[in-house]
Amino acid sequence: MRAVQVVGYHQDLEMTEVDVPEATGPFDVVVRIGGAGVCRTDLHILEGQWEEKSGVTLPYTIGHENAGWVHAVGSAVTNVREGDKVIVHPLITCGLCRACRSGDDVHCEDNQFPGINTHGGYAEYLRTSARSVVPIDDSLEPADVAALADAGLTAYHAAAKAARRLTPRDICVVIGAGGLGHIGIQVLKALSPAQLVVVDRNPEALKLALSIGADHGVVAEGRQVEEVLDITRGLGAEVVVDFVGEGGSTAEGLAMTRQAGDYHVVGYGEDVVVPTIDLISAEKNVIGNLVGSYNDLCDLMALAARGAVTLHTQKYALDDFQSAISNLDAGRVRGRAILVP
Amino acid sequence: MRAVQVVGYHQDLEMTEVDVPEATGPFDVVVRIGGAGVCRTDLHILEGQWEEKSGVTLPYTIGHENAGWVHAVGSAVTNVREGDKVIVHPLITCGLCRACRSGDDVHCEDNQFPGINTHGGYAEYLRTSARSVVPIDDSLEPADVAALADAGLTAYHAAAKAARRLTPRDICVVIGAGGLGHIGIQVLKALSPAQLVVVDRNPEALKLALSIGADHGVVAEGRQVEEVLDITRGLGAEVVVDFVGEGGSTAEGLAMTRQAGDYHVVGYGEDVVVPTIDLISAEKNVIGNLVGSYNDLCDLMALAARGAVTLHTQKYALDDFQSAISNLDAGRVRGRAILVP
Amino acid sequence: MRAVQVVGYHQDLEMTEVDVPEATGPFDVVVRIGGAGVCRTDLHILEGQWEEKSGVTLPYTIGHENAGWVHAVGSAVTNVREGDKVIVHPLITCGLCRACRSGDDVHCEDNQFPGINTHGGYAEYLRTSARSVVPIDDSLEPADVAALADAGLTAYHAAAKAARRLTPRDICVVIGAGGLGHIGIQVLKALSPAQLVVVDRNPEALKLALSIGADHGVVAEGRQVEEVLDITRGLGAEVVVDFVGEGGSTAEGLAMTRQAGDYHVVGYGEDVVVPTIDLISAEKNVIGNLVGSYNDLCDLMALAARGAVTLHTQKYALDDFQSAISNLDAGRVRGRAILVP
Amino acid sequence: MRAVQVVGYHQDLEMTEVDVPEATGPFDVVVRIGGAGVCRTDLHILEGQWEEKSGVTLPYTIGHENAGWVHAVGSAVTNVREGDKVIVHPLITCGLCRACRSGDDVHCEDNQFPGINTHGGYAEYLRTSARSVVPIDDSLEPADVAALADAGLTAYHAAAKAARRLTPRDICVVIGAGGLGHIGIQVLKALSPAQLVVVDRNPEALKLALSIGADHGVVAEGRQVEEVLDITRGLGAEVVVDFVGEGGSTAEGLAMTRQAGDYHVVGYGEDVVVPTIDLISAEKNVIGNLVGSYNDLCDLMALAARGAVTLHTQKYALDDFQSAISNLDAGRVRGRAILVP
Repeated sequence: MRAVQVVGYHQDLEMTEVDVPEATGPFDVVVRIGGAGVCRTDLHILEGQWEEKSGVTLPYTIGHENAGWVHAVGSAVTNVREGDKVIVHPLITCGLCRACRSGDDVHCEDNQFPGINTHGGYAEYLRTSARSVVPIDDSLEPADVAALADAGLTAYHAAAKAARRLTPRDICVVIGAGGLGHIGIQVLKALSPAQLVVVDRNPEALKLALSIGADHGVVAEGRQVEEVLDITRGLGAEVVVDFVGEGGSTAEGLAMTRQAGDYHVVGYGEDVVVPTIDLISAEKNVIGNLVGSYNDLCDLMALAARGAVTLHTQKYALDDFQSAISNLDAGRVRGRAILVP
Repeated sequence: MRAVQVVGYHQDLEMTEVDVPEATGPFDVVVRIGGAGVCRTDLHILEGQWEEKSGVTLPYTIGHENAGWVHAVGSAVTNVREGDKVIVHPLITCGLCRACRSGDDVHCEDNQFPGINTHGGYAEYLRTSARSVVPIDDSLEPADVAALADAGLTAYHAAAKAARRLTPRDICVVIGAGGLGHIGIQVLKALSPAQLVVVDRNPEALKLALSIGADHGVVAEGRQVEEVLDITRGLGAEVVVDFVGEGGSTAEGLAMTRQAGDYHVVGYGEDVVVPTIDLISAEKNVIGNLVGSYNDLCDLMALAARGAVTLHTQKYALDDFQSAISNLDAGRVRGRAILVP
Repeated sequence: MRAVQVVGYHQDLEMTEVDVPEATGPFDVVVRIGGAGVCRTDLHILEGQWEEKSGVTLPYTIGHENAGWVHAVGSAVTNVREGDKVIVHPLITCGLCRACRSGDDVHCEDNQFPGINTHGGYAEYLRTSARSVVPIDDSLEPADVAALADAGLTAYHAAAKAARRLTPRDICVVIGAGGLGHIGIQVLKALSPAQLVVVDRNPEALKLALSIGADHGVVAEGRQVEEVLDITRGLGAEVVVDFVGEGGSTAEGLAMTRQAGDYHVVGYGEDVVVPTIDLISAEKNVIGNLVGSYNDLCDLMALAARGAVTLHTQKYALDDFQSAISNLDAGRVRGRAILVP
Repeated sequence: MRAVQVVGYHQDLEMTEVDVPEATGPFDVVVRIGGAGVCRTDLHILEGQWEEKSGVTLPYTIGHENAGWVHAVGSAVTNVREGDKVIVHPLITCGLCRACRSGDDVHCEDNQFPGINTHGGYAEYLRTSARSVVPIDDSLEPADVAALADAGLTAYHAAAKAARRLTPRDICVVIGAGGLGHIGIQVLKALSPAQLVVVDRNPEALKLALSIGADHGVVAEGRQVEEVLDITRGLGAEVVVDFVGEGGSTAEGLAMTRQAGDYHVVGYGEDVVVPTIDLISAEKNVIGNLVGSYNDLCDLMALAARGAVTLHTQKYALDDFQSAISNLDAGRVRGRAILVP
C-alpha cells in the first residue's frame, strides 16, 4: 500500500510502498483510511521537535487524526466487525492499568501513539486496537470527521471539563476561535447554559464564533482584559478556556478569571507565571487539559451525529500530501486539511 | 476596655483604653475574648505590608484569630445567646450575595475582616456578626482553639478540598509540617484514606508529623523530589498540598505531582512558573486555597471536639502582648502564641 | 388593601380589606404584587388537606407564587431597593442554620411559607424577606413569571439535578408534559446535551413538547415502557424524571430506568413500591425532589431573561379570583392562571 | 483436579474430578485457589433460587469468592504473571462496552459470573480473566481475604459511595453489624469523618462494632428509630446504610434518614414502600448498591494491606465442603467459612 513517511528530520515527507498491516494481535484492528487530518504537530515532527520525546525509528508513517472503515480484526475483537465505519482514538492503550480501568485512558501507563511513535494514518491502512475504534453514525463520513480524532477531541475534553461547573448565571470566556476554539465553542454551547464570551485577534473568526453560538465577541486589540471585566461587573468570568497559550494569553486569561474561578490551559507555548499570593487570595485554579478519553470521543461523535459540532475541511488526495503540508505551513488552509487515499 | 492597637507602621503596638463595642446592628454579636491568636500576618501588618491593601484608618485594634463568649447580641440574632462559647470566623460576610447564598462565604462581595480592616481581637471585646460565630463544644476552651479560627481554618479548607479525590490507593504529599501543615496532616488523616508523605527540612517537625498520622517523612535536603518519585513508582503523588510556597517548593511540588494530579498552593511567597506544555502534557492542576468558609469552621470544630485535631499553644496575658509579638518575630514560639485578656 | 383569604375549609375564598404589611423587621421586604399564580395546591388548601400540616390560623391570605415590585424594605436590607422588579422565592428562610449556610435553603430548619402558613400573595402587597427576593431582568414582567416562583422552580430544580450526570450519549425520559414537565423539558434542553424522550397521554402535549426541544414523543397508551426500551436498545434510560407520580407512573418510570440510572420523583400521589432485590441487582436510585433553592430561582430567571424558558399564562383581575379558581378546578385553564391586582 | 459441583437443585453438592482449566483465550488467567468463601448465595443456588436467572447448565462448579496464585496466563496478559498472589473479582467483564470503558465494570453488558453461571472456585483451579485479578500485598494470604472478593466488596462499594458526602458534622447510621455491616463499618471509618451509629438486634454484634470504630450502638428492640432521632436532634441521619433490607428495616431506615439525606439499600429481601409525597417533601434519596468494581476491589485490598479492614474466618479443607455448607446453613459459622484446597 502507499504510505507517506518521515524519512529524516528537516526533510520532506516521502511517499513509499509498504505492506498492508495485519491484525496479528488478538485486539488488533486494521482500518482502511477514509481521511487523515493534517495537523500542525506534523510540521513540528518534521522540524525534529518530537525526535527525542517520541524515540521513533525512521522511516515511519506519520498521521494521527484518522477515520475510515474496519478492514480486519484480531481474534478477540468483539466491538467492531469488518466494514464498520469508525473514527480512531489517537492512543492505543493497555486496558489494564489503573488509569485505563478508571475510564481515564489517556493517562495509560503503557500507551502507543500512532503517527507519533509508531506507524500512523497518512496511508491506505492503519493498525490500531479494538480499544481505540469508535463506530460512527451512518450520516457521518470518515473524511469529514477525521480531524475530530485529535484536535476536536482535545477541544471537546477541555470544554466538557469546563462545562461541569457552569450554570445559567455564569460567564465562560473562550480565548482563541481558531481550529480548537471553534469546536470548543460548539461543545460549550451544547453542554452548558453559560454565556459565552469569545476573545480573538481576528474579527472574522469572531464573526464565525457568533454564528455558531457565542454570545459576545471581544477583539483582542489590547483592551481585552478590561472588556471582559466590564462584561462581568469587574469580577471576571467563572471559567476561562484558553486555546492559545502564548503571546501573553496566560496572564490575560488569569486576569479575566473570577475569584474561585477556573482558568483552563489548552493551547500551549509560553510559561504560566503567577504569584502564589494571587492564586491564594483569589483562590483561582489553573487546569491542565490533554486530549480526551475514548468516552470523550464517543460523546463528541454523538454531538457530531446530530449536527451539533461541525468542522470545515479542505480535502486533498493522499498523493497530494505535499500540497496539504505546504499550504498548512503557509497558513493557506481554512479549517482543516484532510488527506483522502 | 483594654485594646492593643496599631498606631503607626514600623512602630510597636500600643495598649490603650477604648469603649466596649455595642451590638447596635440587628445581626451584631459582641464577643468577650477568651483567646486571640498572634499570627505572622500581624507582624506583616506592622511592617506596612497591608497598609495599602486594607486601607484601614489608624489607630485600630489588631487580631484576627479570636474565640470567647457571647457578651451581647443584636435584635435579630437567633443562633447564639449571651454566654455561649464561640469561635469567630475571621470574616464578616453579607449573607446576600451569590457567594454567600452558595455557602462559599469567603468570596463574599461585601465583607469585612476584623483585625485587618476593622477592629480585631487583641482586646477584651470584639464586635462581629451572627454569621461569623460558631458555638463550640463544652469540652473546648476559647484560648485553646482561637488559632484554629484562621491558620487552622486555612489548613482545614485546603486539606478538605484535597481529600475529596483521595482514595486508599492514593498518595498525598504534604510540603511543610509547621503550623498549618500540622493541622493539615491531622485533617487529611481524618478525612481521607490516602497514604500521607510529609516533606520538611526539619527532622523534628517530621517526627511530630509521624506521631500525628503521617505515614512517611522525607527530609528536604535536596533529594526530596527523587524520594517522592521513588515512593510513587516514579509516577508522582495524586495530590500535593504545599504549605510553604517559597524557597523552590512550587517547582518541587509540581515535579512531585502525578499526571492528572492536583498541586495545592496554600503557603505563599514565590511565583509559580510552569511551561504550558507541561501542564498540558501531564494534565496537572494548580489549585489555589484561601481561608475556609463558615461551614469549614463548623466541621473543624467537630473534629476538634473529638480530639482529632489539636494544636500546641503558648499563652500570654493580654498585657504581655509585646513579648508574644517579639517571641514570634524571633522564632521563639513553639506552636501558636495566644493572648488571654 | 384588598386580600383574598381562606375563611374556612370547604368554603369559597373571600375578598376582604386588610392593612398593607409593613417592613418592621430588619430584613423584611414588602412587595407590591404584579402577579400571583393560582396553583392546584390552593385548591387542596381549600379542601382542608393542609389544615393540620400548616397549622395556620384562619382567616389568612392565600397565594404562594408571587412577583412584583419592591414597595418597602427593612433597616438592614441591602440587596434590593424600592421599585426593584422581583420574583419571590416561596420560602422565608433563617439564613443561619446549616442548610441555609450551605446554599440549600429549602431545607431551612426554621422557615415560613407565605400563602401556606402565613399571609400570601392573592393581595395587593406581600411581606417577605430580603433572602427571598430575586431581582429580575428588565425584559421580564412580574405577571408573566410569577408562576415560575413555585411550579417552575420545582421543575427547574429537578431538571438541574438530573442534568448533572447527563452526557451527549444519554437518554433522559420526561414523564408528563403538563405544567411542570413543560418547564422541565426547556430546562433540560438548556442544561444538558442528552436526548429527551417525553411520555404523556395527551398527543397535543407531546406536540408542544417536541416544539420546545423534546427529541422523541411517546404516547402513554399502555406500551410506553416497551417503547422506551426499544429506543434504548432494551437497556432503559440513564435518567427518568417523573412529573406525574401517580396512576402507575412510578412503576413504569423505574422500569424505564437503566442499570445504575436515576429515577427522579417530582409529581406525587401514589406510593413507590420496589423490591429491594431489584434496586440492588440493577443499582438504581430513586431521587426525591422538592422546590428549588434561592440560587435555583436566580438561575431560572437567567434562563427566562434570555427566552430559554417560557410559560403560557392566562391573566385574571384579582377581583375575578373566583373565576380563576373555578376554571382551574374545572380544567379550563391552559398554561397557568395568574391574578393581577 | 478436585471440584465441588452442583449436580441438581435441592440436592447436596458433590466432589468430582475434572480437568484443570487452561488459559486458552488471550486474556485468560488460571488461578490456583488458595481460599474460596462459602456464601449464603451458595445455599440459595442449591435451593434453586438462581436456576432460571443464571441459566447455568448442570453440573457446574460453585464458588464465587476466590483468591489464590496465578497458575497460567493467556498470550495477551501483561498485568500478572505465574506465581502472583491475587484476589479474584467475581465478574469477568468485556472491557469494551460503555460501562467497562467508564470504570463501572459491574454493569458490563456482556459479563460472566464464575460460580453462578460458569465454573467457580470450590476447586483446585479457576479460570478467570486478566481484567478480574487483583495482585495482593505480600502480607496478605489468599485464604484470609477470599471472602472480601464478594461480600466484602459489596460492603466496600456501598460504604465508599455513602462516604462521598459525609463530613465531620454528619451522622451515618449502619443497620446490621453482621458480615457485610462489619466490613462496611471499617470502611466508613477509614473513608469518612462522620460519626457512626450502628443498629443491630444482637448486643454482641454491637459490642464488636464499637470495638472496630462505631461511635454509638443502638439495640434494635423496637425503639431504634426513636433512638436515632434522639441522637440526631430529631432530624435523622444524613446517611443510612442498610445491610439488612428485610424485617421492616427499609421503613425504619427511611424514617431514620434526614431531609435531603441518602438511604442506601445493600441487604435485600422485602419491598421498599414509600409514599411519593414523603420522598418529595423531605427530598430523600433511595440508593441501590451492587457489588463493587475492579477499582473498588483494588482500594479494598489497599485497606486490607494496612490492616484497616479485617475479617474473621473459619477455614475448612476443600474435602470438608459439606461441613462448611451445613454449618453455614445452621448458623454455626462465626465470621466467614473458607474452603482451602
